[in-house]
Amino acid sequence: MTKARLEAFSDGVIAIVITVMVLELRVPEGSDWAALRPLIPVLLTYLLSFIFLGIYWSNHHHMFHTVDRVNGAILWANLHLLFWLSLVPFVTSWMGRNHFAAFPTAIYGVILLCSAIAYTILQAAIISRQGPGSKLKAAVGDDRKGKISALLYVAAIPLAFVAPLIADGIYVAVALIWLVPDKRIERRTEG
Amino acid sequence: MTKARLEAFSDGVIAIVITVMVLELRVPEGSDWAALRPLIPVLLTYLLSFIFLGIYWSNHHHMFHTVDRVNGAILWANLHLLFWLSLVPFVTSWMGRNHFAAFPTAIYGVILLCSAIAYTILQAAIISRQGPGSKLKAAVGDDRKGKISALLYVAAIPLAFVAPLIADGIYVAVALIWLVPDKRIERRTEG
Amino acid sequence: MTKARLEAFSDGVIAIVITVMVLELRVPEGSDWAALRPLIPVLLTYLLSFIFLGIYWSNHHHMFHTVDRVNGAILWANLHLLFWLSLVPFVTSWMGRNHFAAFPTAIYGVILLCSAIAYTILQAAIISRQGPGSKLKAAVGDDRKGKISALLYVAAIPLAFVAPLIADGIYVAVALIWLVPDKRIERRTEG
Amino acid sequence: MTKARLEAFSDGVIAIVITVMVLELRVPEGSDWAALRPLIPVLLTYLLSFIFLGIYWSNHHHMFHTVDRVNGAILWANLHLLFWLSLVPFVTSWMGRNHFAAFPTAIYGVILLCSAIAYTILQAAIISRQGPGSKLKAAVGDDRKGKISALLYVAAIPLAFVAPLIADGIYVAVALIWLVPDKRIERRTEG
Repeated sequence: MTKARLEAFSDGVIAIVITVMVLELRVPEGSDWAALRPLIPVLLTYLLSFIFLGIYWSNHHHMFHTVDRVNGAILWANLHLLFWLSLVPFVTSWMGRNHFAAFPTAIYGVILLCSAIAYTILQAAIISRQGPGSKLKAAVGDDRKGKISALLYVAAIPLAFVAPLIADGIYVAVALIWLVPDKRIERRTEG
Repeated sequence: MTKARLEAFSDGVIAIVITVMVLELRVPEGSDWAALRPLIPVLLTYLLSFIFLGIYWSNHHHMFHTVDRVNGAILWANLHLLFWLSLVPFVTSWMGRNHFAAFPTAIYGVILLCSAIAYTILQAAIISRQGPGSKLKAAVGDDRKGKISALLYVAAIPLAFVAPLIADGIYVAVALIWLVPDKRIERRTEG
Repeated sequence: MTKARLEAFSDGVIAIVITVMVLELRVPEGSDWAALRPLIPVLLTYLLSFIFLGIYWSNHHHMFHTVDRVNGAILWANLHLLFWLSLVPFVTSWMGRNHFAAFPTAIYGVILLCSAIAYTILQAAIISRQGPGSKLKAAVGDDRKGKISALLYVAAIPLAFVAPLIADGIYVAVALIWLVPDKRIERRTEG
Repeated sequence: MTKARLEAFSDGVIAIVITVMVLELRVPEGSDWAALRPLIPVLLTYLLSFIFLGIYWSNHHHMFHTVDRVNGAILWANLHLLFWLSLVPFVTSWMGRNHFAAFPTAIYGVILLCSAIAYTILQAAIISRQGPGSKLKAAVGDDRKGKISALLYVAAIPLAFVAPLIADGIYVAVALIWLVPDKRIERRTEG
């Protein structure tokens, strides 16, 4: 099996997920600043989720750059990742409309954590398929960024019930950690 | 005619169908666990439909791996399959919102059955185009999985009126049967 | 300019248009046959529009098979076609929800007519780009099907105000005329 | 990194953005001309936004024609552009439903301005990656069209509060300026 259709399908799903979020931005009834203001938290959450999905797309792009052939395990690990990402629009507008209330903020973190775990499983499936001398293994190393992100999510979820803004701050911090795509893969695949 | 655009178009439609389902997950008004709880059956149905669509995409992927050129019959058999798959989001949210009531559960089975029949027609169109020595024919064999699934759907539809949960159990069972992509095609196309 | 991205973009738009129509199938409140029955006209209109969009996609596919390079005129003629096709979901659900009332039925015909004109303009732009010895010109010939369809739409639009069902019958007739993809192109490009 | 997936992902997002706008065309309750009339401003705004997105897609297409390889900066500059474009459906229906009221008309201009700035940043990232002898630099020259458009948006935004129709006229004028794809790139890449 070649990777072309898997990439095309993933691109399609992520493109749709990133775009349908905007459908949740309900057009306000009024036509002044007062009508727009309640949408600000929804817009901010949209921006955060857009960045997270952009990071996933970009890292997915980098990761599959090291892949030549896929098998059933990679295919289903990829669908598993897409499943969690497809829930992002739902939690995004739930958190946004409730002005970062405790419970939706925690659930937002749960979806991010599950996506991160699914990404790690996909990574492991690819490394296992590539066997010894895996290009991805060499590029990812000990995957420090992945481990730190997971720990931060695990901390943020209970913290959401104490102070949602701290949890939100942690989500932003994780986004910043990842905003730079994995230089090691880029260097490896270019070098 | 080459198969590239047919694959791209099918990937696009399945990616959209799998993703728009999530738009039916109406964001709850409240922000606590009580607000989320009524969505659980919708989420479970979403998960089941996601798996079904993932199976169709994966098997479609495997099947077209054996195809070199397409003709009008394959093209329309493929559109016919996409038509039934495009109705999955509708029946998914209807069944989910009515907590697996009898009639929506039966209609869900009807759409799955029609999709399965459409898939079989597409398979037959490809085998007929490939003529004697068809790679797909060799890989599919007597298509036992396809026949068992169809029989299970035919049983589940009337059973939905007796006990919807039994019908739901049958749908899950069919999903489990297919979750493993067709090893025979994978082996053939890799060997 | 190569045609790859134009094809990919058109596939994307048509795939989305064909799929978002299903979002207009509002999930009924009840869970019995009585709740589903009012949706029958919407479902029938959906089926008709699905077939029309399938025909456009299939013919677009055949037409671009003869194309090697695109220019600005082809690119914008293609976007013009996609514009009219993007309005199909709107008129589909308007006609369906009003049980084939006169005015929505006429507007449905207007959108089909505009799409047909846009397709003819795109075809002319490609033939003009290909110059003498145009492969598409040879395949399309005097474009009898295109002319007959346009005439039928022109007849159906006023007839919708007399008897909407006659107009609907004409739409179905046009779909049947086109359901067979253009054998001449298929023969040419395969021969 | 190759540009194939970046192009495919951008095509996907723009195709979805251009198509979901039509979901905002709420199907009217009645079935006569009176029911359709209030939708005219929404339809006109839809047409304008469709043209703008078509221009962006077409210019994106031309611009990436000069690109061989992408890096992280190009990838994120591209996502940044897609972010602003993804907000177009929201401002389109807000402006359309409020019959070109002052504030939504100004915000529409803000989104167009931000998209234009994002496009310029993406252009600069590509030129910087290509280094001296950049094909894109040679094709774009002093980017007069880009600068004039930005100036026109900057003028239109405050003018929207004085007379929204003047602002709308400016948006239409910018669309007309760009409707012709950049001949210079076309000539260069064909020559």
